[in-house]
Parts: sequence; structure tokens; C-alpha cells
Amino acid sequence: MAQKLTSFIEIDPQSDFTIHNLPYGIFSKTPEGEKHVGVAIGDWVLDLAELAEQGLLEINGKENYFNQPTLNKFIESGKSSWQSVRKALQALLSAENPLLQDNAELKERVLIKQDNVILHLPIHVPGYTDFYSSKEHATNVGTMFRDPKNALLPNWSELPVGYNGRASSVIVSGTDIVRPSGQIKLPNDERPIFSATRKLDFELETAFIVGKPTQLGQPIAIENAWDHIFGMVLLNDWSARDIQQWEYVPLGPFNAKTFASAISPWVVTMEALEPFKVKGPVQEPKPLCYLQENVANSFDIKLSVEVQSPRSKETDLICETNFKYMYWSMAQQLTHHTIAGCNVQVGDLMGSGTISGPTENSYGSLLELTWNTTKPLTLSNGEKRGFLEDGDRVIMKGYCEKDGIRVGFGQVENTILAAHTFAFAEHEAEQYETV
Amino acid sequence: MAQKLTSFIEIDPQSDFTIHNLPYGIFSKTPEGEKHVGVAIGDWVLDLAELAEQGLLEINGKENYFNQPTLNKFIESGKSSWQSVRKALQALLSAENPLLQDNAELKERVLIKQDNVILHLPIHVPGYTDFYSSKEHATNVGTMFRDPKNALLPNWSELPVGYNGRASSVIVSGTDIVRPSGQIKLPNDERPIFSATRKLDFELETAFIVGKPTQLGQPIAIENAWDHIFGMVLLNDWSARDIQQWEYVPLGPFNAKTFASAISPWVVTMEALEPFKVKGPVQEPKPLCYLQENVANSFDIKLSVEVQSPRSKETDLICETNFKYMYWSMAQQLTHHTIAGCNVQVGDLMGSGTISGPTENSYGSLLELTWNTTKPLTLSNGEKRGFLEDGDRVIMKGYCEKDGIRVGFGQVENTILAAHTFAFAEHEAEQYETV
Repeated sequence: MAQKLTSFIEIDPQSDFTIHNLPYGIFSKTPEGEKHVGVAIGDWVLDLAELAEQGLLEINGKENYFNQPTLNKFIESGKSSWQSVRKALQALLSAENPLLQDNAELKERVLIKQDNVILHLPIHVPGYTDFYSSKEHATNVGTMFRDPKNALLPNWSELPVGYNGRASSVIVSGTDIVRPSGQIKLPNDERPIFSATRKLDFELETAFIVGKPTQLGQPIAIENAWDHIFGMVLLNDWSARDIQQWEYVPLGPFNAKTFASAISPWVVTMEALEPFKVKGPVQEPKPLCYLQENVANSFDIKLSVEVQSPRSKETDLICETNFKYMYWSMAQQLTHHTIAGCNVQVGDLMGSGTISGPTENSYGSLLELTWNTTKPLTLSNGEKRGFLEDGDRVIMKGYCEKDGIRVGFGQVENTILAAHTFAFAEHEAEQYETV
Repeated sequence: MAQKLTSFIEIDPQSDFTIHNLPYGIFSKTPEGEKHVGVAIGDWVLDLAELAEQGLLEINGKENYFNQPTLNKFIESGKSSWQSVRKALQALLSAENPLLQDNAELKERVLIKQDNVILHLPIHVPGYTDFYSSKEHATNVGTMFRDPKNALLPNWSELPVGYNGRASSVIVSGTDIVRPSGQIKLPNDERPIFSATRKLDFELETAFIVGKPTQLGQPIAIENAWDHIFGMVLLNDWSARDIQQWEYVPLGPFNAKTFASAISPWVVTMEALEPFKVKGPVQEPKPLCYLQENVANSFDIKLSVEVQSPRSKETDLICETNFKYMYWSMAQQLTHHTIAGCNVQVGDLMGSGTISGPTENSYGSLLELTWNTTKPLTLSNGEKRGFLEDGDRVIMKGYCEKDGIRVGFGQVENTILAAHTFAFAEHEAEQYETV
């Protein structure tokens, strides 16, 4: 049982941001203001750039990696640096330490209410990879779109299936999503039409962030894989199911997913998640040698999705699931990713794939929750949903709790805007590009 | 007919690097030396950083974008800047201009023999996308792996099928390729095995480089697409066919391609390629509105592949084809890429897909040339090839020629190294990571 720590900062028992968590993010005080590395604690952001400036936080090397627009420089400083910063912050925030606690002027300077800051994309993401590691999700999708009797393809149980995503459209929570347009093929038409997607969906995922790079041609051994992982975020991998169904053969999803992938602003470190490690599902067949892992390699992270109609004041909880259902571990994903020689870089984002559990209310996408619109959801205000409507807000949350200690991710939330209008008839570029 | 220009530099008539070309690259004089932007002219590199330093080349803005480790800053300076630099360089190198021609000391300083420089990856590639736009290639692959009667999938003729590649493993010509290992599934086995690939292949491609970025949610109208393209390179999109065949369903190729994608070091600008524009193939069915283009949108670029066995002193020419066979244009690819809202960034690399022509000697991969090993090639030294062997060197070349004017790409070449040995039995990380 982990020892419970207490901070001098008053923290709500339901807060994700306890002294046991200390997740990293990038904030500014004004939209165009200077970006700093911050840590979330209760309702506050602790300004690490300012702390370092005041000599209360040691910088490992010459460069002030807290005075940066992304976390990458800090992450590059290495695992021993992550560990010593965490230790220093826990000591500084402890109820037993008067240093910051009793210095009102200093507190004023380094602690800012979360309501008063702007949170930015925390990471420069050089590469984004998305896996497909929930057996329940892959089975559901295979049942709907291929063959219920052979829902899982033969390779699925042998390797963590994954594909390259688009890094440029990774966005932070709060960014609005313009409903994407593209080619969709209606069942009775001979040819596709150009249309706004009619099947806009979320995908409930988590993602890990690579903390230690590799060289081209140098695979990561499974024993070392955890050392390459800095932390985790929530990920909503937005999807347009009708665009996807038409385009995805034979090379995989493209425009159906490249329009937006949203992450939560706070990166929860693997150190903070350590107490919540659990064993993952039994893997049968036993994976090939390079993927074999004999340690607890999953995490008990409670996950949920809420949807809010633009005509409702309340959100509806439509999915509750858990990260621990994932079949393939993050270490297995990373080792597989590099086994043929692909190099990874600090800041690479690796999505879990949609996380679905075994029960109907634990599915991580509307595709599954409504079984491709055949079982629409009824919201608390009486509205029905097959897929998402304009104005809908989707909120994903995640947290761990054990022995009275809570470590959470906060949330990733986005609102859907109406699609662009395309003026093809006129073929006027200005109209086209600015509508 | 374009007016033929003459440089005071003696240029071999077979040189790719005439005064009409002036491709950009990144070079250094020693392996760890400072990187500068250079232009290839005949057997020489013209040092643009040094030219600017000497006041012979104007910088548009404050930042010296020629004194950089990649071309990205120069490209970001915009199309009018690309045009004025080209004009200034053509004037400076002209046989009629004494300024550089008659200044021996200056020439010594700014002109370096190509044999004496190291060429680096010219671009920082934030995103790599690969298309699949050769009808002949898609038909060949579909015939071999799916159904000869329905070789082209229904979406192929409606949109430029593409997928996200891995940007971190984009490498420059000359980098050795370690034969990748991974899961392969032999036809009579129940489960996959772990093995070095037995089907290592090249893919003859070109790629364009994005020169003007877009914002998330802002599609590029087809009329404006060409303005977003800076130039082109040769691309060898290395592939492991056995890994690919096992892993690629349902989300597309991953480890089979992420181990290396090699590009030629010199970026040929769209301005230099302009005289070689031709009409692309007739598109039937007529594409949807957003993909319709009524201009000459292809290029007459002669392409070839040579292979050299480690036991041979000569190379064997095994493929001759042409870019003009491509069904989908680069403008169509870029417009389609952004139509759902995906943003693009300066330096994004967009591969054509394997370029195959209509005849058997014009196929752009060994998979097609040897029809998946059923028709092995015989090299001039008597050796046979189904796929590539360790020590094989693959050289791709490309050039345009018209009215006595030649504009070429140089080459992209790589040599294959033996696969790593994996010591799974011992499970010793050191052995595993360093072998």
C-alpha cells in the first residue's frame, strides 16, 4: 500500500490532480503569452519556469527546459531528471514543508488558478501511431463489417496491429472539430458522392508518449520498453465512419481520421501510474519471444465518455470502461513498432486504439454503442443519437483510485461545428477556401 | 520551346544539373561540419550560405535561411522568394555574367566539387504520406494478391488512395539499409515465425514536398494546389513483402515499410520541371468536382532502377518507366489529402506510390518485375533475383529532357546490410539491442 502524502494546498477529494499525480502541461496566462511548463495540483497550476527562475527547482544541464512551448526538452533531459523533478515537487508541495507554503509572495507568483490559464498542446508530436489493441473493439468491428464467425483476423492475436496516424492534426482538448467532408458511398448508388460525414464518431483511447529515442535499425527489447515511455494522456481519435468504410481498403484509414485527434492537456507520468499497475489479460496463444513479458503490464484506469447535446444543460454518461481490458501492453506495442528497425523520437504519440470492455455500456465508440445506428442511444432530454450531431460536445475522463489515493487525467473535450459549404459549381477558390 | 541558357561552368551534356535545373540540397564539407543550403550545378555545389554572406544573394527577411541544416526555412520564405533566388542564381551562373565567373577567389569559396561534400537529408519531414496512384501498379498487386478479375478495388478510380507513412525513418540516399526482421507467416504453418524478411523489395517512386502550409479544417482547392508544392525528389519506399502480407489487414502496411524510405539529396523545383509538363492519362470515370483539373498536370520524367550484386562490378538496368503514367496528379493527391480538414506543413513528403508502366520492364518493384518470384530476373553476371539479397545495391535515377534541355534528379541509392541476430534464448537486453 502506497503511503498517502498530503499537500498544503487544499485539494478536493474528487480532484484528479493530487500530490501523488503531478502531471505536466503547457500553459500561458494570455492567449499569446509566453508558454511555460506547469504542473496541475488541485485547482492550481504550478509554474515550473518561475520556480526554476526563483532557484527552487534545479535544471539538469544548461537549458531551462521549463521555459519552453512544449514538454519535449524536459522529456529529453531523461528519466533521472523526471524522477528528481517529481521528488522535488512532492517535497515542495508537502504539508510539512514551509518553504513555499509560508511564502505568500512566492505562492502568488508560482501558483495560478487553472481557470485563469490557457492550456496548449503539451507535446510537439513528431510521429503519431495508433494501435488496435482492444480485443472487444476489434471483435465488435469485425462482427459488424466483416464476418461474425471470424471477427478477429488471424494476425490480431499474434501482434499488436497498428498503423501510422497523422501527427499534424493532433490537437489539444477544447479545440472545436469541423465536421469533415469527403467521399462517401451510399449502399444503393453506383458511385460515391461528396458529402459532409453522416457518421461522425469518437474513439475513446489513451496514448503514451515516447520519452527516450532510438536510432534507425535498433529495436527496443521488451525488457527495456518501459524505460522509453514518459507518460500517458487521454485521446479522442475522431473518426468519420462513412468516409472510412469507403476509403480504407487496402491501405487503411486516411481522411476518415486525419482531420483531428484530440488529447488531454495534462501528461500523467508512468511514475504516478505505477501504484495502479495490474496484470493484463492472459494472452493465448502465447506471443512470439520478442513480445513476451512476465510482469504486471497493464493499469487500472477507469474511463468514461459523456455527450452533451447543444439543446441540453446536462451531459449524458454513455460509456464506462477500463484500460485494464487492453489485450496488448504499451511495452508490447513499442517493441513491435521498432522490431523491423523503425526509430522512435521523443514526443511520439502512440494511441491504444479504441478501448471497449466486455459489456454493451463499456464500448468506446458510437459505432459499437449504437451498433452502427441500429440501436440508437436515447439521451436524458429525449433526443436520440446514432452518430454525433453538430453542436454535440464529447467529454472523455479517466482516473485511477486505490487505497484512497487518486491520480487522474482530467479530460479531453471537443464540440462539433457544422461542415463547410463547398461552392463547387462556381469553382471560385476564395469561396472554397474561406467558407 | 524554352530558351537554352549557358553557364560559365563546364557541364557535361549528360549532367542532370544544368543551369535550367538548380536543385536545392543540404551539404557539409566534413561529416560533422556546418550544414549549408547548396545548389547542384554540373559536378559542383554552389554554397548559398557563403554567397549570401558575400552579399551576392539577397535574403528576404531577417533570418539567413541558407545557413541552416534543412531547406525548411528557405521553403517557408515563400514562392516569390523561391522565384527570385532562382532568377538570381541563373544570372550569376550565366556565361554572360563576369561577376562570379571572373573572380577566382570567390569561385574558390562558393563552388565545391560534389565529390568533396557530404549530402544530408535535405528536408525536415514533419509528415510523410504515401499514395498509390499508378493504375498499372495497383492492378498488378491486386492481380497477384486478390482477384485478377477485380484487381482494382472500387474506390481506386474515384480517389487517390493514400496512407500515412512514418516520417522518422525517411533517410537520404547513401544510408545503408539493415534487412528488417519481424513476423512472417509461411503458407503451411499454423502460426507466424520471427524471421528476417525473405522478400526485401524496393519501390520506385517520386515524392513532392509541401511548400506552403494550411490550417486545420481548411481544404486546398484543386485550383490552388500547385501553389502548395515546392519541388520533387526520387523516393525508394523500401518494403518487406512477407511482413506486409501478414500484417496489413485491416489497417494497412506498418513494419513492412516503416524501417526506411530513402530520398534523393537534391530537391528539383516545380519551376525547373515546368517545361516538362504533359497531360496525364484520361480519367474515366470523371472524378468528383473537387478533384477535377483542366490543365496539363503530369510530367515527362524518365525513371530507371539499377541493381548491383555484391559480386558484380556492374549495375544491371532492371526497370525503365516514366512518371507520366501516373493516374492521379500531385494536385489531386494534395487536394484529396486536405479535403476532410487535415492540415499540411512545410516539408511534408508525399510519395507517388510505386510507379509502374504498361510493359513488363517498366514495373517499379521486384514484386511485379519477378511476379512474386515466379519469374526471377537474371543479372548480367548470371545470378538470379526474386527479391533482394544482402549486399545488393539499388540505384534509382530520373531525368527530364526536351529540346536539348536536361533537368535531372541525380539518384537515390542504398546498399542492403545483413539482418540483426536476435538472441531471444538468452533474453539479454544488451545482446539484443546492440547486435
